[in-house]
Amino acid sequence: MSQNNNSNYKKTAKKNNYHKENGQMSNGKKSAQKNSYAKKSAKNNGKSQSFQSKNRKPYNNRKPVEKAVKPSLKVMFLGGLNEIGKNMTLFECMGEMVLVDCGMAFPDGEMLGVDLVIPDFTYVEQNKEKIKGIVITHAHEDHIGGLPYLLSKIHVPIYSSDLTCGLIENKLKEHSLPKPAEFVTVKPNDRVKLGCMELEFIHVNHSIPAAMAVALHTPAGTVIHTGDFKVDYTPTWGDPIDLSTFARLGSEGVLCLMADSTNASRVGSTPTEQTVSESFDNLFKKAINKRIIIATFASNVGRVQSIINCAHKYGRKVAFSGRSMVNYMSVAAELGYLEIPEGILIDIDMLGRFSPEQVVLITTGSQGEPMSALSRMAYSDHRKVSVGEGDCIIISANPIPGNERTVGNVVDELLKRGCEVIYESMYEVHVSGHACQEELKIIHCLTKPKYFIPVHGEQKHLRKSRDLAVAMGMPKENVYIGDIGKCIELHEDYMKEAEPVAAGKVFVDGLGVGDVGSIVLRDRRHLAQDGLIIIVASLDVYDGHVISGPDIVSRGFVYVKESESLLDEIKQIALEVLEDCANRNIHEWGVIKNKIKDAVSHHISNATRRYPMILPILMEV
Amino acid sequence: MSQNNNSNYKKTAKKNNYHKENGQMSNGKKSAQKNSYAKKSAKNNGKSQSFQSKNRKPYNNRKPVEKAVKPSLKVMFLGGLNEIGKNMTLFECMGEMVLVDCGMAFPDGEMLGVDLVIPDFTYVEQNKEKIKGIVITHAHEDHIGGLPYLLSKIHVPIYSSDLTCGLIENKLKEHSLPKPAEFVTVKPNDRVKLGCMELEFIHVNHSIPAAMAVALHTPAGTVIHTGDFKVDYTPTWGDPIDLSTFARLGSEGVLCLMADSTNASRVGSTPTEQTVSESFDNLFKKAINKRIIIATFASNVGRVQSIINCAHKYGRKVAFSGRSMVNYMSVAAELGYLEIPEGILIDIDMLGRFSPEQVVLITTGSQGEPMSALSRMAYSDHRKVSVGEGDCIIISANPIPGNERTVGNVVDELLKRGCEVIYESMYEVHVSGHACQEELKIIHCLTKPKYFIPVHGEQKHLRKSRDLAVAMGMPKENVYIGDIGKCIELHEDYMKEAEPVAAGKVFVDGLGVGDVGSIVLRDRRHLAQDGLIIIVASLDVYDGHVISGPDIVSRGFVYVKESESLLDEIKQIALEVLEDCANRNIHEWGVIKNKIKDAVSHHISNATRRYPMILPILMEV
Repeated sequence: MSQNNNSNYKKTAKKNNYHKENGQMSNGKKSAQKNSYAKKSAKNNGKSQSFQSKNRKPYNNRKPVEKAVKPSLKVMFLGGLNEIGKNMTLFECMGEMVLVDCGMAFPDGEMLGVDLVIPDFTYVEQNKEKIKGIVITHAHEDHIGGLPYLLSKIHVPIYSSDLTCGLIENKLKEHSLPKPAEFVTVKPNDRVKLGCMELEFIHVNHSIPAAMAVALHTPAGTVIHTGDFKVDYTPTWGDPIDLSTFARLGSEGVLCLMADSTNASRVGSTPTEQTVSESFDNLFKKAINKRIIIATFASNVGRVQSIINCAHKYGRKVAFSGRSMVNYMSVAAELGYLEIPEGILIDIDMLGRFSPEQVVLITTGSQGEPMSALSRMAYSDHRKVSVGEGDCIIISANPIPGNERTVGNVVDELLKRGCEVIYESMYEVHVSGHACQEELKIIHCLTKPKYFIPVHGEQKHLRKSRDLAVAMGMPKENVYIGDIGKCIELHEDYMKEAEPVAAGKVFVDGLGVGDVGSIVLRDRRHLAQDGLIIIVASLDVYDGHVISGPDIVSRGFVYVKESESLLDEIKQIALEVLEDCANRNIHEWGVIKNKIKDAVSHHISNATRRYPMILPILMEV
Repeated sequence: MSQNNNSNYKKTAKKNNYHKENGQMSNGKKSAQKNSYAKKSAKNNGKSQSFQSKNRKPYNNRKPVEKAVKPSLKVMFLGGLNEIGKNMTLFECMGEMVLVDCGMAFPDGEMLGVDLVIPDFTYVEQNKEKIKGIVITHAHEDHIGGLPYLLSKIHVPIYSSDLTCGLIENKLKEHSLPKPAEFVTVKPNDRVKLGCMELEFIHVNHSIPAAMAVALHTPAGTVIHTGDFKVDYTPTWGDPIDLSTFARLGSEGVLCLMADSTNASRVGSTPTEQTVSESFDNLFKKAINKRIIIATFASNVGRVQSIINCAHKYGRKVAFSGRSMVNYMSVAAELGYLEIPEGILIDIDMLGRFSPEQVVLITTGSQGEPMSALSRMAYSDHRKVSVGEGDCIIISANPIPGNERTVGNVVDELLKRGCEVIYESMYEVHVSGHACQEELKIIHCLTKPKYFIPVHGEQKHLRKSRDLAVAMGMPKENVYIGDIGKCIELHEDYMKEAEPVAAGKVFVDGLGVGDVGSIVLRDRRHLAQDGLIIIVASLDVYDGHVISGPDIVSRGFVYVKESESLLDEIKQIALEVLEDCANRNIHEWGVIKNKIKDAVSHHISNATRRYPMILPILMEV
């Protein structure tokens, strides 16, 4: 992509197939629209469904004397509980289903060679006829990353904001789907009817623009799923979270709240994104005569906007580095989520034409990813940028748990090259996108749900989130801590666990989806620990005596040149086993191989205390 | 080890060979001695050498008009700079050498299958005749872990406290050394002459008792190496750090300070260990009716003492779990560093005889190590302890960078089993053992060194430590940030880099030391990522045509049963290459193998986007 100026962000016409059957929504322009509060409220008048029992007191189980019997709603968790990532929830009411989010997770250290992890879609595939649509709350990978794999199996319309749809569309280009994806772009306060359920979208703050919570108005009652959110009264992009709509829903009656619990262990409130803007301003002021390089998440469009604004104020040009940074900014600018002042954007190739104090480079690599632009700069492996004493490098992100070491290594390498490096909490150059305890309390207080299900988090977060709700007066039995595969049935009069559904982790490795399982991973772990020894021999087809070999090949075990005698011993041991078997008329290869394995591994473990994989291969000649 | 009561900690007679040649020290009893301040000062009167130029002002380069020409001192860094771990420093003056510490480091995620990392001892071996002794500041693995490997190559007497010597001796039992180790136990304020250098030991606080800094009084001047330290005015074990001796040395004149910089990025002061004791007291008060399980570092004897005191106060029995916990406590109790009230200690097998509120279990596993006692409890894999709702589990440690995920997973598993888990900063159940910025300033202020070399830390820590010194008025050119293998020459009139020495990382894997190098690791990483495919064929010795095979064996690549067609394709491709070579009279096996590799890897990467190791093996028949 050329980045010479703003106009290079192409405004391609998008081929969205608006979902017609249920098209009760007033879907209009695709450009980002900053709705004023009054307008939003007005639009909703008279539109809300009458499913809710009015005037229900919070946390009160009393039954009215007479009322129609309501159906129940099932909520099935396909991901995002007891883990960070691959968020996916399935709602079912009266035989109709709606999905919320379809994310991916990053592999942990045990999942060797795995590129990414997605939810198990078995149950969704089995019920594909029932699924009316999938709602995507926002465009982070842990909410959209599983979509290409889901859409290759089932066709289901996607309901989300224009930015989210745009970023998904961009992502899907890398995958060949059997059928083009069907997008329905919605705005906050839009309502969409999907079968018996009506979806209402609610503007929230998060570390990516155009994030929305969703209220599902179902015959069983209203369920609010917050998606990822924080409460930011002074966001750098768009309006503060639409607390009024949460309040209205609360007064209408909420059967169940499902709230983002990622930060439920943190007291207080998440600082506003504005603090980061102020930190940038201070750092730009101080970094005279230096080139500024800022690493942040490509998806954090608001953060990038702050940097661009700062660059504009201090007369610096801006270049982007890293493929995903370029991609995200392209889509964001196209859809009006990023305002780039005329003439400020330069291509990374043009950096050399400006002196250090005239430029800012915005780059990926804030997590120390080995192939990312920032890592390449740190290890002098970047084709276009070399860093040194003239650079002030700001890492505008916190390490995701598990990445602390790689981030630390990148920081150290940059420091060794003489760069000034601003990282972690040295200045407030990063704030979280997730609600802390006080923000969660606000949502509880406004929505007054009957039931509460903490979502998005590990066990420790889910429990903290439950404890908060209980501390606010919710009966403990009205809170449900779920798990992947669990199904909970919600009803005005009860909440109970139903039959679990198929769910789990599916590994994606290269083009393979699900073909790397526990056996393959076990072998990879074994190979990674101590390498392997291959013992290959050709045997006489008639009498089983050795015709050629045994030859020993090892990889990842020892440096062969220094361990020739050990390999000779292994060869001798294998030969003895083979000849012994031939002499004793043992011709079952399974038996012979096991005998070789046992004898060789015994010898190796005594000699080295290592346990390489031992692989005897016999050939008949 | 049986733990039924205190008396089971055997008081074996230790066979220390006191170093006689230079035996000017007044080395006496081996029991821990809590020296009063007055006594210490008195002992030192008249003992200090006259190497120091008196009354030198701090940070002042002025030369006196006349003075004897002093020799220089070389400091060589064999580990502990730009890394956390394997601390080792070599001092050389007038052709004589002294080593300080000999630690190990844990492998990072790239060092697959490596058990531990030790310094490269090449330079030490080359100069073994010059080495007068090795000083060990304290018994943490990053200061003693390399000793078994060093002592298997050179024989050198070890100077350290009785506890440190005892723990080293215990450790060495697992290794067979060519010659028994020679220990010289010293106490704070003892002085030992090693050739031209006189060593003075200084009591410091740290997260293990009997930690000492060392002042090397050399003909070139006095160098202070702090070892690991913190300033604790109310430690739970022993006296506060001996600041007076640092002050005296400062007033006598210090050529160079080398200070522990692990926490140099942290403002303020490290809290006292007393805060942890108070937290324990509060938690014990609250945990009525619950069993208490506390995971901490086995080496943190002071912490364990606090727990025992608390258990005693609240009438609970104490059991130890985990091999290293049992070992450390055994040595510590034997040497008087751990006071266990009569009858309080029970064997872990006896836990069942007491009700939960009557016991405390002190265990290893605070870092989430997969094979540790706590992990086994979390995953229901512990033979003797199963945990659940009746347990309050306290993790009295912070995750070492890189361990956050494993610790988090253990916490989650424990929570899922219904345990109450106290971790991280929920309560002050852990404090660091390293000095923060204010404490470093105290040492600078007291010792007034001419030169400063920050040690123990990554680049970011070393730089922060330098910045602190400079902020206190030290000229920037008097601070040296070193690296492994660097040698700095210190002289009253100058500080300059000298020729570097051999240094680096040596990997220990099982019994092998140094036989796993970059090629083996590269293969392990390759195997870990995508597994391997072995293609084996027997060829006619005369015409090169295939007699048997090719057979395909794969491990860690795909689940074979689901990918039979792919393996058949690989077989076909290999066969074609082999027959083509035979027909074209290509008989060089290197060439044939490369052709197979190229053809097969091309096919696989197209089909799967994976890059397994491809290993053709040809046999001649």
